[in-house]
Amino acid sequence: MSGRLFVVGTGPGNPEQTTPEALAAIEASHVFFGYGPYLDRLTLRPDQRRVASDNREELARAKDALHTAASGEKVCVVSGGDPGVFAMAAAVLEALEAGPPAWRQVDLTIVPGITAMLAVAARVGAPLGHDFCAISLSDNLKPWTVIESRLRAVAGAGLVIALYNPISKARPHQLGAAFAILREVLPWSTPVIFGRATGRSDEAISTMTLAEADPTRADMATCVIIGSPETRIVERDGLPPLVYSPRSIGRTP
Amino acid sequence: MSGRLFVVGTGPGNPEQTTPEALAAIEASHVFFGYGPYLDRLTLRPDQRRVASDNREELARAKDALHTAASGEKVCVVSGGDPGVFAMAAAVLEALEAGPPAWRQVDLTIVPGITAMLAVAARVGAPLGHDFCAISLSDNLKPWTVIESRLRAVAGAGLVIALYNPISKARPHQLGAAFAILREVLPWSTPVIFGRATGRSDEAISTMTLAEADPTRADMATCVIIGSPETRIVERDGLPPLVYSPRSIGRTP
Repeated sequence: MSGRLFVVGTGPGNPEQTTPEALAAIEASHVFFGYGPYLDRLTLRPDQRRVASDNREELARAKDALHTAASGEKVCVVSGGDPGVFAMAAAVLEALEAGPPAWRQVDLTIVPGITAMLAVAARVGAPLGHDFCAISLSDNLKPWTVIESRLRAVAGAGLVIALYNPISKARPHQLGAAFAILREVLPWSTPVIFGRATGRSDEAISTMTLAEADPTRADMATCVIIGSPETRIVERDGLPPLVYSPRSIGRTP
Repeated sequence: MSGRLFVVGTGPGNPEQTTPEALAAIEASHVFFGYGPYLDRLTLRPDQRRVASDNREELARAKDALHTAASGEKVCVVSGGDPGVFAMAAAVLEALEAGPPAWRQVDLTIVPGITAMLAVAARVGAPLGHDFCAISLSDNLKPWTVIESRLRAVAGAGLVIALYNPISKARPHQLGAAFAILREVLPWSTPVIFGRATGRSDEAISTMTLAEADPTRADMATCVIIGSPETRIVERDGLPPLVYSPRSIGRTP
């Protein structure tokens, strides 16, 4: 007997940015696995059960969810943002590949969501308007030397960079180290955006240059976007500046 | 007198993936600018007017929209997917920066959407589960040499690659050339996903290896995802394979 497993992204935290598809998956599920603060955003019925776990326990959570679904339950694994971007979908697939054959037969649906960098970008203009990348600064799951060489490669190639997991209590130094590397490669006038808790009541968005970028402005809920050498800041009287990356390079617009 | 300008992303095409925020912006607008097929997806009231234009006329469309909003109208510029990813938000900002000062005072709201790569990724698993980038293959707006060097840099650095605008009638050769470059850098066993019209009635998703990747499978509505050397294919009896990029590299999971 095989149940159903949804892996759902609820978006950055503003309910207006959660898709009807995600809401329908939540409505159809009976057991919910996720990081507590993400589960707290859901409005559940009395017949819907939640199993909260810490945000460093993704693989164990994924196994529990697959096990529960394989036993016939309708299960929902909840991520903020998009589940496929530094979130639960990859953990579920890792567990599925390593687990018993029955887990591969679970009816699996992954429901995309608005990921943080898209929400932050929309708040300030169009910094991701040209080629860009998303890199996690967490070295829990990869060596710092790999992160360092990736930052050099993408900045040197002219891509805009969105940094996920820029900082945590256990990793206070990575973002400052990343800015130091990027200052070796990029003009110090390159725009940097700190986007925290976009669309939520405690939202804080700020734009500055790479020279000014101060890592202590970031926390776990922050997505940091670093422009390319082409990225521009447009000042406005009495309004916050806009930031965008032009669609064209090397040609007269 | 200054109106209002929304730049809205409706997602990949399935109405269930359009956010309430996008629907509210559409509801609040009176004049709609966009590529005809994107405007066709909207259900408009008799008092709402549409101005369709070709998909090679983004800058002219952006100017018209800003001009109309600055004259006091409530205007909506419509993109498929996310407006900040190879879409209208950057064109609006380019026009705004170069235009009359009044355009900077327009009340501007950019509404994010599910961009194609997230929707394609969700259909097959979690290929964007680790560091990744998004690159447009169109050389209408940048030299082909830049595209080539970016492909080499990001593939060499181990990022998963999502290719937007992989091919068009005017540009039939780029995707084949991109695969040829990537075959020099990546293992030929690297998974490649062709995701066409995700979530729409004519959806077509296929997974193969870089060795097998055939550029003629792509059209303008296709987003192509090329894995990193870490990306894995998980076979399932009687079900389509899953594809994911593990969260960790260089460490035993």
